[in-house]
Amino acid sequence: MTAMEQMGQKARQAARELNAVSGTQKNAALEAMASSLEEQTGAVLEANDRDITRARAAGMIDSMIDRLRLTKERVAGMAAGIRSIRALTDPVGEVMEGRRLENGLEVRKVRVPMGVIGIIYEARPNVTSDAAALCLKAGSAVILRGGKEAIESNRAVAQALRAGLEAAGLQPDTVQLVEDTSRETAAAMMKMNGYIDLLIPRGGAGLIRSVVENATVPVIQTGVGNCHIYVDESADADMAQAIVVNAKASRPSVCNAAETLLIHSGAAPALLPPLAAALREKGVRLRCCGRAAALLPGVPVEPAEEADWATEYLDYILAVRVVDSLEEAMDHIARYGTGHSECIVTENYEHAQRFTREVDAAAVYVNASTRFTDGGEFGMGAEIGISTQKLHARGPMGLRELTTVKYIVNGSGQIR
Amino acid sequence: MTAMEQMGQKARQAARELNAVSGTQKNAALEAMASSLEEQTGAVLEANDRDITRARAAGMIDSMIDRLRLTKERVAGMAAGIRSIRALTDPVGEVMEGRRLENGLEVRKVRVPMGVIGIIYEARPNVTSDAAALCLKAGSAVILRGGKEAIESNRAVAQALRAGLEAAGLQPDTVQLVEDTSRETAAAMMKMNGYIDLLIPRGGAGLIRSVVENATVPVIQTGVGNCHIYVDESADADMAQAIVVNAKASRPSVCNAAETLLIHSGAAPALLPPLAAALREKGVRLRCCGRAAALLPGVPVEPAEEADWATEYLDYILAVRVVDSLEEAMDHIARYGTGHSECIVTENYEHAQRFTREVDAAAVYVNASTRFTDGGEFGMGAEIGISTQKLHARGPMGLRELTTVKYIVNGSGQIR
Repeated sequence: MTAMEQMGQKARQAARELNAVSGTQKNAALEAMASSLEEQTGAVLEANDRDITRARAAGMIDSMIDRLRLTKERVAGMAAGIRSIRALTDPVGEVMEGRRLENGLEVRKVRVPMGVIGIIYEARPNVTSDAAALCLKAGSAVILRGGKEAIESNRAVAQALRAGLEAAGLQPDTVQLVEDTSRETAAAMMKMNGYIDLLIPRGGAGLIRSVVENATVPVIQTGVGNCHIYVDESADADMAQAIVVNAKASRPSVCNAAETLLIHSGAAPALLPPLAAALREKGVRLRCCGRAAALLPGVPVEPAEEADWATEYLDYILAVRVVDSLEEAMDHIARYGTGHSECIVTENYEHAQRFTREVDAAAVYVNASTRFTDGGEFGMGAEIGISTQKLHARGPMGLRELTTVKYIVNGSGQIR
Repeated sequence: MTAMEQMGQKARQAARELNAVSGTQKNAALEAMASSLEEQTGAVLEANDRDITRARAAGMIDSMIDRLRLTKERVAGMAAGIRSIRALTDPVGEVMEGRRLENGLEVRKVRVPMGVIGIIYEARPNVTSDAAALCLKAGSAVILRGGKEAIESNRAVAQALRAGLEAAGLQPDTVQLVEDTSRETAAAMMKMNGYIDLLIPRGGAGLIRSVVENATVPVIQTGVGNCHIYVDESADADMAQAIVVNAKASRPSVCNAAETLLIHSGAAPALLPPLAAALREKGVRLRCCGRAAALLPGVPVEPAEEADWATEYLDYILAVRVVDSLEEAMDHIARYGTGHSECIVTENYEHAQRFTREVDAAAVYVNASTRFTDGGEFGMGAEIGISTQKLHARGPMGLRELTTVKYIVNGSGQIR
C-alpha cells in the first residue's frame, strides 16, 4: 500500500467515525481548531517566514509573495473564518423530502456527508484552514494537498488544526495534509477511487484542466470565468456604464470580473466614448473589434484578435465588440463563455427574459454586476469555490454542495 | 472535425434551441415520437429480425437473445413508455429557492436543462426510446450509443423517433444515434468535453468501469449493487425470512437484489435452518462461512471464499455470514458494499437508528426488502438508472436528476 493509499484509508476511517458525531461535537471541534490556530500563531508565522525566504530566493514575484504571506492579522482572520463556518447551519441531517408510500414504507431523502473530500490547491495557506473547516462542518474528512511554495506554512496550520481536533476528542486524521508536494501525489489523488469521494481543484486554469483530464474520481471544476456584459440597445446609459466599470475594474483578479463587453450597434455610438473614458480612468486597457475602434477616434485602443474573445485576462484589460442583435450577443457568449457569470443591461422585458432563459451559465444577470456571483453575496456563508460545471453544484458552492444524499426507508416487513 | 465532433456540434445546437421550447411543445413532440414509433412497428421488427439472425449466427445465448428481441407488444410498450414520460411533471423551470437580498437583487435558483447527455448502453433496444424520451422531457439533446448487437433495431427506433420530432417541428438532431458501434466511438464520447455535459453508462460492471476510468466528461455511475441484508439478534423471525427470500429470489438479475446475508450469531441457530430451507425451495444456492455452514448440518451448502463477499452474483446464489454484532455487520458492509441498497431487520430502535445513520449507501432500509430501490417504487416515475455515486444524484435517477440549475439574478443597476 502506498503512502497515499494509507492516507486514504485513514481518511475513510475518520469519515466513518464522523457519521456518528453530532453537530454539537463538530462545533466544539471547530472552536478548538480556531483556538489552537490562534495559540500556534508564532509557529505558523515562523514557518511562513521560511516559505517566504525560499520563495524570494527562487525569484517569486511580489504579488505571488503577497498571496503567500501570513501576518498576525491574517492568522487571526483564518481563526475568525473557522468560527464563522462554525456558526453556519449544519447541513447534515436535513430531510429534503419524504413521503409515505401506498404500501406504508416511509421514504426520506436526507442530506448526509460526502465522506472523503480531496482539495488540490496552490499558494494560499489560508485555504488550508478554510477547506478543513468547511469539510468538517459538512461532516467529511479531508485530504489537503497544497502547493510546494506554502508547504511549511500549510504544515504548521494543519498541525494546529489537528491538535484542535484531538483536544475536542475527534480523530485528528479528519484533516490530513499531503506533505510530499511532488506532482506524483497530486496525480495519485486524482485516481484514488474508493478513497476519495470528491476532488476539488482550487487554482489556475492549468491546474483545473489537469485535474479534469486526469482524474478518475468525481471532480468539481471551479473558477474559470470568461464573463460578458451585453449592453442592449435599450440599456440605460448611466446604469450600463456603472455596471461595466464595476464588473471590470472593482477587482479584476477574480473569476466573476467581466472580460468582454458586447455592445449593441444602436447603443454604441452614444455609450462607448464616455464608457471608454470611464474605464481608462480606472486604468483599463481596451482590446476593440474594428467597429468599436472606429467609434473611439483618438483613443489609444488595441485591436482585438480572435484569442481575446476566449481570454480570461484577470487584469485591467477589457475586450470590446459591437454586435447587431441580442442573438449575436448570445451566440458570442455560447461560443466563448465559460459558463460562469453573464449579464445583460437592458430595459427591454422580452430581451431580459430571453437572455436569462437561453444563456447557459451558472449565474445570469439582468441589470447588475457579475461581481455578485459569490457565496457570501448570495447568502450561503463561506464558499469553497464557484462551480462552472453542471453536475452536482453550479455557481457558488457552500456547505450544502459539499454533502450528498441518502434515502432512508423505514418499513414494517414490506416485500415487493 | 471528426464525425463524433460533428454529432456533438449538432447536439449542442439542438440543445440551445431546446432552451426556447415550451413544455407544451416538448409534450407534443413526445406524443409524435410515440405515434411514429407505433407507425414504424413493421420496420422496427424487420430490423430487429436482422439483429436476431446475426446474433444467433454468432452463437449468442438465449437469455441475451431474449433481451434483444422486440415483439409487437414490446414496441407498443416502448410507445406507452414515451407517453408515460410525457405525462410526468416538467422539471425545467422549477424555482428551487429564491430570495431578495438586502441590496434589492432578486436571486432565484432555477432548474434548467443539462444540455447534451450521452448514453452508452448494451443490447436492450428499448433503452433507445426510454433514454431519448427522458432526455427530451428534461430539455436536453441526447447522443445514444447502443451496442453493436442491437444496431439495426436501434437505427430503426431512432429513425422513428427523429421523424416524430420533425413532425412536431423540433430539431431531429435532438436525438442522435451513433451508428458506428466500434470501440472508438464509445471512447470518443468519453472525451467530448465541451460537447457532452453528462455521460451515463447503462450496462454491466465492465462497461461502467471503463467509462469511469476513461471519461474526462462528467459521468454518473449506475447500477452495481452488492446489497446486504443484516438480520439483527432482535429480528422478527418471520419478517426476516420474508425479506431475505424476497430480496434474493424475487428477481435475482437486478441490481437491487440482495447478494449477502449477514446474520447475528444470537439469531442464527434458530433462524438460519428454516431460512435456508425457504431459500433452497426458491432454487437459491448458499455460499456459507464456516459458522453458518455448521448451523446447517445435512444441507448441501458451498463454502464462501473471500471473493464471494465482493461478488454481485445477479443469480440464485446467496453468500451467508454469521456476525457477532451490529458493528461487525456494518464493518462488513463498509468493506464490501457498493453503496447501492443495504437493509437491517431488527426490532431494536437504537440499532435501526445507527444502521441508517452510519451505513453509507444510496438507500438504507429498516425492515423492508432492498428490492424497493427503484424510481417507480419511490414515486419518481421512469428512471434512467440508479446512481451509486455521491455526486449530483444518488439512488434512482428520474427527470430531475437529468437537469442542472442556474442562478437568475434580476437587478436594477446594483454594483458591488
